[in-house]
Amino acid sequence: MMAQPTKTAFTGDRPIGVFDSGVGGFTVARAISRAMPHESIVYIGDTARCPYGTRGVEEVRAFVAQVGTWLVRQRVKVIVIACNTATASALGLAQRMFDVPVIGVIGPGARAAVLATRTREIGVLATDLTIASGAYLRAIKNLDAGVGVHGCATQRFVELVESRLAGGIGADAQWLDGADLFDTPEVRALVRRETEPLRGLDIDAVVLGCTHFPLLVRPIRAVLGRGVHVVSSAEETMRELHEMLACQGHLAPSTARPEHRFATTSENTSAFAEAGRFIFGSRLVDVEHVGIDELSRLASDRQIRTRRL
Amino acid sequence: MMAQPTKTAFTGDRPIGVFDSGVGGFTVARAISRAMPHESIVYIGDTARCPYGTRGVEEVRAFVAQVGTWLVRQRVKVIVIACNTATASALGLAQRMFDVPVIGVIGPGARAAVLATRTREIGVLATDLTIASGAYLRAIKNLDAGVGVHGCATQRFVELVESRLAGGIGADAQWLDGADLFDTPEVRALVRRETEPLRGLDIDAVVLGCTHFPLLVRPIRAVLGRGVHVVSSAEETMRELHEMLACQGHLAPSTARPEHRFATTSENTSAFAEAGRFIFGSRLVDVEHVGIDELSRLASDRQIRTRRL
Repeated sequence: MMAQPTKTAFTGDRPIGVFDSGVGGFTVARAISRAMPHESIVYIGDTARCPYGTRGVEEVRAFVAQVGTWLVRQRVKVIVIACNTATASALGLAQRMFDVPVIGVIGPGARAAVLATRTREIGVLATDLTIASGAYLRAIKNLDAGVGVHGCATQRFVELVESRLAGGIGADAQWLDGADLFDTPEVRALVRRETEPLRGLDIDAVVLGCTHFPLLVRPIRAVLGRGVHVVSSAEETMRELHEMLACQGHLAPSTARPEHRFATTSENTSAFAEAGRFIFGSRLVDVEHVGIDELSRLASDRQIRTRRL
Repeated sequence: MMAQPTKTAFTGDRPIGVFDSGVGGFTVARAISRAMPHESIVYIGDTARCPYGTRGVEEVRAFVAQVGTWLVRQRVKVIVIACNTATASALGLAQRMFDVPVIGVIGPGARAAVLATRTREIGVLATDLTIASGAYLRAIKNLDAGVGVHGCATQRFVELVESRLAGGIGADAQWLDGADLFDTPEVRALVRRETEPLRGLDIDAVVLGCTHFPLLVRPIRAVLGRGVHVVSSAEETMRELHEMLACQGHLAPSTARPEHRFATTSENTSAFAEAGRFIFGSRLVDVEHVGIDELSRLASDRQIRTRRL
């Protein structure tokens, strides 16, 4: 009676758009590709303007509008903002702006932690800016006002991962669950020092509130111990995405062969390709360069429909 | 390392507490009992003070504190506030007040509608007060700021159900999915009139935002048509509860035999028992009467731990 067929046309064969300020979002793309092997992904890293964390909120909102517009132009069926800073600053803006659904990385991780905690005390490991934004605190308290939230700013984890990736990881190196390049005694010692503020608080669930952190999941699990449930926002975002696509009948058909595309705003496409291959787990063929000037032009294009701005 | 064993002791064998201002919450208890047949339920209806919808927010918050305290005394492992008015007014209060987790009926229904909509336009059928509270609008916009939310106050649905239940439903009458006592031509005509404001808005998901409304699901589905996904907050709340108990390892063991208990603040326990049997689907043995004075005394008992008030 009410639904218009034109708006509900099947779009399962379109790709999933994934967007990060850099390469951290590949952990989310990896989770999607492993759990939904028939889905095609268009991944764009705004590497030329990375990191977003040191920028102002308005600037980040403008970047999200630009990159989101580019993804809509690629005819994606959904946009995943695989970046905590961008989610905290601009998720609502993107949801109001675009016709396709937009999913962020904060809500799914917050929900998983609330469902998992028995002690009702949750820790959040994230960058300084994500912790300072209070986005996880709000998301968790919104779901359960009685849960204690203990933020732990661990900027050094990002620096560790970034420097390791920038230093070159070797053409054959691969990040595998369980056998982790990053799991060294030095890293475990760093994790132990950085997570010190979470001790003695009866915490039994910890959210990895940065898309880089799944790379450190092994040393983090080892240090926190068996009694602590470690929530990967990459995995939880993938689950939320899957549930949504399944509910809407927008999953790719099981006969589909995935075609991934990768793009970066950086001119150094080979560094992006190397880090991407390492995290995503397969070679990135033909990384596209998308200029920032092109993104700016797109965003001023009136043809992109804005919903409720 | 961080979790204390004393706080994480297994409590799966404890009952689930379900609370409503009257008998509408039996739709939630029914969904729980059908999907989780090993779980024991303690159901309390504050029938003597029903409906909550005509009372002030502070009064409802006091009632929730009292009834929640009574449920905690019955050693429930979780409290389900199976009442939209009480959820809108006092979910956060109850979550901060009690050691056990507290689940409301608004969040789960809102989430299911957001995941299901393709047109990104959602309708909400609820009582005048629930619509006026804006609780569904906030819950849905929190999840997806770009979704349109169209509230439709349908107080007459409650009156219809209540008068039918109060009028006596016959000792053998039973409410069965698919063969519904309430699905008459008159009810369909009423549903058609009441849902008129939702027409022509491209809505493809409608939340039943009142625990009475699952009793009308058949005529509502018939009137809205196949293109509209009807979300039962009773079913969605059951799913959220199941996910939480499963995550925490707090499901009843599969060897458990459920023992349900039913209580009402009304002295007319037989009317409560009759409506309860009709909705819940099995005879209510030995309905307990819990006096309002007893509830008031309990709530002033300092021994009930308050968490973060």
